[in-house]
Amino acid sequence: MAGSSVKPTPVLKDELDIVIPTIRNLDFLEMWRPFFEQYHLIIVQDGDPSKIIKVPEGFDYELYNRNDINRILGPKASCISFKDSACRCFGYMVSKKKYIYTIDDDCFIFIDYPSVHIDRLDFEVILRDMKPLVAKNPSGEQINALEQHIKNLLSPSTPFFFNTLYDPYREGADFVRGYPFSLREGAPTAVSHGLWLNIPDYDAPTQLVKPLERNTRYVDTVLTVPKGTLFPMCGMNLGFNRELIGPAMYFGLMGDGQPIGRYDDMWAGWCMKVICDHMGYGVKTGLPYIWHSKASNPFVNLKKEYKGIYWQEDLIPFFQSAVLPKECVTVQQCYIELAKQVKEKLGKIDPYFIKLADAMVTWIEAWDELNSPAGKSSKQPNSTAK
Amino acid sequence: MAGSSVKPTPVLKDELDIVIPTIRNLDFLEMWRPFFEQYHLIIVQDGDPSKIIKVPEGFDYELYNRNDINRILGPKASCISFKDSACRCFGYMVSKKKYIYTIDDDCFIFIDYPSVHIDRLDFEVILRDMKPLVAKNPSGEQINALEQHIKNLLSPSTPFFFNTLYDPYREGADFVRGYPFSLREGAPTAVSHGLWLNIPDYDAPTQLVKPLERNTRYVDTVLTVPKGTLFPMCGMNLGFNRELIGPAMYFGLMGDGQPIGRYDDMWAGWCMKVICDHMGYGVKTGLPYIWHSKASNPFVNLKKEYKGIYWQEDLIPFFQSAVLPKECVTVQQCYIELAKQVKEKLGKIDPYFIKLADAMVTWIEAWDELNSPAGKSSKQPNSTAK
Repeated sequence: MAGSSVKPTPVLKDELDIVIPTIRNLDFLEMWRPFFEQYHLIIVQDGDPSKIIKVPEGFDYELYNRNDINRILGPKASCISFKDSACRCFGYMVSKKKYIYTIDDDCFIFIDYPSVHIDRLDFEVILRDMKPLVAKNPSGEQINALEQHIKNLLSPSTPFFFNTLYDPYREGADFVRGYPFSLREGAPTAVSHGLWLNIPDYDAPTQLVKPLERNTRYVDTVLTVPKGTLFPMCGMNLGFNRELIGPAMYFGLMGDGQPIGRYDDMWAGWCMKVICDHMGYGVKTGLPYIWHSKASNPFVNLKKEYKGIYWQEDLIPFFQSAVLPKECVTVQQCYIELAKQVKEKLGKIDPYFIKLADAMVTWIEAWDELNSPAGKSSKQPNSTAK
Repeated sequence: MAGSSVKPTPVLKDELDIVIPTIRNLDFLEMWRPFFEQYHLIIVQDGDPSKIIKVPEGFDYELYNRNDINRILGPKASCISFKDSACRCFGYMVSKKKYIYTIDDDCFIFIDYPSVHIDRLDFEVILRDMKPLVAKNPSGEQINALEQHIKNLLSPSTPFFFNTLYDPYREGADFVRGYPFSLREGAPTAVSHGLWLNIPDYDAPTQLVKPLERNTRYVDTVLTVPKGTLFPMCGMNLGFNRELIGPAMYFGLMGDGQPIGRYDDMWAGWCMKVICDHMGYGVKTGLPYIWHSKASNPFVNLKKEYKGIYWQEDLIPFFQSAVLPKECVTVQQCYIELAKQVKEKLGKIDPYFIKLADAMVTWIEAWDELNSPAGKSSKQPNSTAK
């Protein structure tokens, strides 16, 4: 499939890492081959480290399992979740690139078994029998999700004033009448949040109530989430500028030994948004869509989520009113300050938040250690192909 | 065309008025007949009151010219602009309905003369020769703009938290994971801001730089402009709940005798948004699109706009930081308070804003007079058909 023909170099080839958390063989990458094969992958293996994860041939990757994480971070490995896709943020930390794209390993392909749960099937059987369906736009063209994320990240955001024709930097669009000229330069874009066709990203109660609902609507836009506005950031299809906002992309303590799951990306999104608002960075949401194939088990999800559903009623007002002092001029400083406020204000709700606040501090310490000039050489991945 | 067949009663037939400001015959209504003919129209005739405005047969309307406005409002008529489409807000004031839809008289039809200026042509010639083109969605269906506005107004808004799948009340959509349950009831919708295909609503400098740009992108969504975020509200295709927000929909002092034009809807939008945020009401933007046929003259526009382009750099920070005290519990109280702040803070920029602040107070006095039980009987339109 690779052949000997020369392929055009994709945008940001040497400046972007693709981070994938997984517990299974990465056959899904076959579907992404045309878009991913020239980029470097960072695979974070969740669960049993003795299991061998198979990566299709021809991909350039490094893979970290729990033993690697423990070895590299030592006692600070406690801040990286286990048995939860929150572990992906370890990949952000060890990357050496300016940009990150992260994706779930159940995205992109369409399984032509009615209402099947992908978890219960042998992946090889699925690959043999499935009708792969990449997400398409209304014109029937394949969506190059990564390319769209890169576009989003390389063009400015407009967090300070809403443009009614949406992204003013897109071809065929501009700022409309009444948009202040002083704001037309926009703000640097820190995050590009992509969406999903097919299985929508619903919480367990909504999944239970609407088991058959599918997202079929392709909304052809990218927009900036305005300053001061929070949103639910999903980690399924997410790009960001690691240099601008990386240290705020901590996915929290979830899964094994924790009272909560499925709030990893939400937590990161709320922390990140408060910090972007403080730093003057933009956050975009909208295109690209990917095809989300797997409806996860709502009963399992409910067990993971129920405390989060309860707690989020306090979390949102907390983040909505969080103010960072002017003295915080780096993302790390902002994050440490936010950890302090989490401990003070959310610690009263549940001791979990005290533990989480400590882990937030540990995360920043580990980030700085690995990303100092000395720290960079201490990273040793498990395996590298190509 | 009316025939004897029984037509289905459209939604809110007796609760919605359509307000149209005009200086010319309203032949454009022929195009809207299937959508408008069962509603009541309020036509505000701008310019020379001795001119006879022709309204196509079969429409139910009342028409007010400058003489009517002077007669009905007396000295308070000074708050209604002359020789500017800002005069439309007089129609909001005399309406007796709960909802208003307002539209420009150059919307909906497509003139198949390349780059022609509709102003310079005889409307009858145009109607004879044109290829009418109503705005269509990507499936090729005619857009019923009014119906979509009504949907927007009758379903709640989500100003307090952003939903990444956009309007959660739309069929096939819902609130995504991480959206607080306590916020899922939403807020009452005060305003529905619709968009335009073809000629985009650009300011004069952008018109001059991009004379050929046309908006061809149909973005299939309606979204709530988040609380605390300002946007440029265009009056071309606008619906609102008059009972909730009517008194804030003052289009200011523009046109004849004023130093500024083309900021009427912007002014109303900024005032309205600050008040909606204070009152807990929602403002939506997006669908429906209408077809905007006329590219107005950018040189004329530049003359009208140039002070506004300069002033808006101060206006936006003013509105972004405006705070209304808790004691303001009605829209009228909010508006009077805002007028006070305009006088105090913007009066320093130019004496125009002192005059405008006074006109804002006059507007509220006139509104209350006409909308008190006693005031309602004093309105006498010029003519009523059907």
